Amino acid sequence: MAVRGDTRLLDRLRALDAADPLRGLRGAFDLPPGLIYLAGNSLGPPPKAALIQLDRTSREEWGRGLVGAWTDHDWIGAPGRVGDKIARLIGAGPSEVVVADSTSANLFKLIVAALAARPERKAVVAANGDFPTDLYTAAGAAGVLEGRELRLVDRDALDGALDDDVALLVLTHSHYKSSELYDMAAVNARARAAGVLVLWDLSHSTGVVEVDLNGSGADLAVGCGYKYLNGGPGAPAYLYVATRHQERLRSPLAGWMGHAVPFDFADGYVPAKGVRRFLCGTPPILSLSALEAAVDVMLGADMAAAARKAAHLGDSFLEIAAEACPALERVCPGPGERRGGHVAFRHPDAAGLCKALIAKGVIGDFRGPDVLRFGLSPLYVGFEDVGRAVAILSAAMSPVS
Amino acid sequence: MAVRGDTRLLDRLRALDAADPLRGLRGAFDLPPGLIYLAGNSLGPPPKAALIQLDRTSREEWGRGLVGAWTDHDWIGAPGRVGDKIARLIGAGPSEVVVADSTSANLFKLIVAALAARPERKAVVAANGDFPTDLYTAAGAAGVLEGRELRLVDRDALDGALDDDVALLVLTHSHYKSSELYDMAAVNARARAAGVLVLWDLSHSTGVVEVDLNGSGADLAVGCGYKYLNGGPGAPAYLYVATRHQERLRSPLAGWMGHAVPFDFADGYVPAKGVRRFLCGTPPILSLSALEAAVDVMLGADMAAAARKAAHLGDSFLEIAAEACPALERVCPGPGERRGGHVAFRHPDAAGLCKALIAKGVIGDFRGPDVLRFGLSPLYVGFEDVGRAVAILSAAMSPVS
Repeated sequence: MAVRGDTRLLDRLRALDAADPLRGLRGAFDLPPGLIYLAGNSLGPPPKAALIQLDRTSREEWGRGLVGAWTDHDWIGAPGRVGDKIARLIGAGPSEVVVADSTSANLFKLIVAALAARPERKAVVAANGDFPTDLYTAAGAAGVLEGRELRLVDRDALDGALDDDVALLVLTHSHYKSSELYDMAAVNARARAAGVLVLWDLSHSTGVVEVDLNGSGADLAVGCGYKYLNGGPGAPAYLYVATRHQERLRSPLAGWMGHAVPFDFADGYVPAKGVRRFLCGTPPILSLSALEAAVDVMLGADMAAAARKAAHLGDSFLEIAAEACPALERVCPGPGERRGGHVAFRHPDAAGLCKALIAKGVIGDFRGPDVLRFGLSPLYVGFEDVGRAVAILSAAMSPVS
Repeated sequence: MAVRGDTRLLDRLRALDAADPLRGLRGAFDLPPGLIYLAGNSLGPPPKAALIQLDRTSREEWGRGLVGAWTDHDWIGAPGRVGDKIARLIGAGPSEVVVADSTSANLFKLIVAALAARPERKAVVAANGDFPTDLYTAAGAAGVLEGRELRLVDRDALDGALDDDVALLVLTHSHYKSSELYDMAAVNARARAAGVLVLWDLSHSTGVVEVDLNGSGADLAVGCGYKYLNGGPGAPAYLYVATRHQERLRSPLAGWMGHAVPFDFADGYVPAKGVRRFLCGTPPILSLSALEAAVDVMLGADMAAAARKAAHLGDSFLEIAAEACPALERVCPGPGERRGGHVAFRHPDAAGLCKALIAKGVIGDFRGPDVLRFGLSPLYVGFEDVGRAVAILSAAMSPVS
C-alpha cells in the first residue's frame, strides 16, 4: 500500500490536476461517478454531447425529417464534413480525410489502390506482430491482385526490407500491445528515398499522441473512431490520402457514394474528385452522428496540450508503478520515451489482476496471454486517477500487506 | 377531385383497412401525425422500439457497460444474431446470413469471392440499368482480378448471356426505379443449368415481397437495412451465403472480425467457419442496435401476409391512379403482376409534382429525369392512405378543377 499512504505523492498528483488546462473536459463525458476508466484505448466512453446528438439525429432528424434529412440535415455531407474535422487532429488538410466503413475495409481499399497504381513493384511490407487486421487485410489485398505478395518482417528489419520491389509499407503507428511508437517523419523519409509509399494505421494514435501527416510527408493513413476519439462502439473509421496521390489512386470498392455524381444513377463509374472517391456505400448516419459530436469535443482541446498531458500521465503511471508494483514487467517504452497512449505490463496473472481491478472500479484491459494495458486519455483521466489506480493495482498484487 | 369525392371508394378502402391484420403495426412507428409516408423504399421511418433501443444501447450499454458491453451485452454476437433474424424474413437458415458493412462492400466481397473460387470462368454478368452500385462494384471487383471482366447486357438478353465463360450473375431482385421483379427460382434454375452462380441484391425486396432464398435454390445475396427494414439511415447491410458454398468462398476483405478466433490476435488469417468469415471490421453497434429492434418489429408481422398486403396496396394505387390521374404514365408492372414494393410513374413534371405532394403531407420520391416513386410498406401504410395520396396527386395535376 505504498502509494495509498503516500500523502506527498497524492498532493503532487492533485497539484498536477489543478494545473491541468484540460481538467474541465472530464465533465463532458458520461462516466459512472468514481470509476477510473483506463480502457479508452479499446473503447472510449460516451461524450454527453454524443448522446444528445444521437437523440437529435434519431428522433428529430430521422423521425421528423425522414428521407428529406439526407439534404435538410446534410447527412449526405457528413463523411466529408467529419473527415475535415478529424483532419485537424492529425495534421491533414481539407478534402484529405473522409469518414467511411471500418478501419479494415479502409486498409483494404488503400492497399489495393496503392498496389494497383504501382504495377512495377510487387510487394507490400508489414511488421510481424502489428495489429492483426492490418496484416490480414494486407494479405487479403495482396492475394486478390495477380503476382503481388505480402512480406512480413520484424520491426527492426524494416529498413532493410524496403527494396525496389516494394510498393507499400503498412505500419501501425502506435502498437496496440506494446505502445511502441514509430517516428513517422523518419520512416516516411526513408521509405520515400526507397520509392516506397507508407500507409499508417492511426487507430491507437489519434487523439492521444501528436500526429502531423502533412508535416511528416505522409502518403496514406487510416484510423478508427471508437478509441481515443470516443465515437462509440464500432464508430465509422476514416482514411487519409495526401492530395498529391488522390488523382491516381482508385478505390477497388467502387460503391455509389464514391461516384462523381451518385444521384445521376449512371451505369458507368466515374470516381469523385479528391478523397471522396474512397467512399463506398451509404454511411451509417446514427453512428456517424455520435462520432461527429465526439470529434467536436476533441477539437475543443488543444491537441498538442492533450498529447503532452497523455505522455505525462503515462510517465507518472510508470514511475509510480515501478516503485509500488515491482512484480510488473514493463513492456512499453519507459518514462520520457516516445510512446502511444497506453502503458503495458507483463504479469503471469494479468487476467486475474485485470478482474480484481475491475471489482475495485478501475477498468483496464487484458491481452492474452499475460499483458495488462492501461489507456490514458488526456480528456477524462487525471493524475490522481493514475495514483489511485496504481495503489489499487499494488494492493491487488499483495493482498496480505 | 374524382377520388376525394368518391365516398364509395373511401368506404371500400376503409373496409380494407379494418380487415387488415397488420393495421396495428402503424402504431409501432414514430411517424408525424397525418403524414402519408410513401418513401420507405428509400428510407424507412423509425420504429419506436428502435429509438428506445438506441437510447438503451448508448446510455446504458455504452455509458455504463463501457468496454465490457462487448461481452456483457453481446455486442460481439450482434452481426450473427441479427443476421439470423433477417434470415427468417428471406427464407434463409441459421448461420447463412450476417450483418456487415454496406450493401456495396458486401457486393464486392461476394463478387470477388465467387470469381476467385471459379478461375476457369472469366466473366461476371449484370443487367444494364440495375442499381448503379451493383454495376460499379461488379466492375471494380472484376477490375482487381487479373483477366476477369464485367459484361453488361439488357434484362431481356440475360438468358443468352449465360455461357460457359460466366462465373456469376449479379441481379437486383426488385428494380429500384421500375419495380420490376425477377422470378428468383426460375433465374436460379436457368443459371444453375448453365453452371453460373447468382448473387441477388435484395435491397428493394426484403420486408415487402416474399423472398425464399433456400426454397428458390439461391446461391448468394446482399441487402440493405434502411429501406423496408426501417433500420435507420445507412443502417448496416447483410449478406447471405448458402451453406453449400460457405466453405470454399473466402472474403477478400479479410478483417479481424471474420477471423476464426479474432481475440487470439494471431498474425496469420484463418477464416471463421460459416458465414461469419464475411465479417470484416468492428461493426457500428449504435446503428446495428437500431436495426435489430426494427427487424424485431418486422418479425412481429407474418411475412407472407405483409407481402400480400404490399401487393394489394400497390394494385389499389395503380387502379385508382389509372382513373384519377390519366396523365401519369405507369412504368412499373400493372395490377396483379409481379412487382416490387413501390409503384412508379413517368410525368414531364415529376419533380414539381413530388414537391407539391410533400407540401400536402404526402412523401413520395423523385428519380431524375421524370420518374415518381411511391413506396408502399405494409407495416405503416394503409389503404385509405393510398386513396388520399392519389386524390392529392390528382388535385396537384389539375389545380383548376
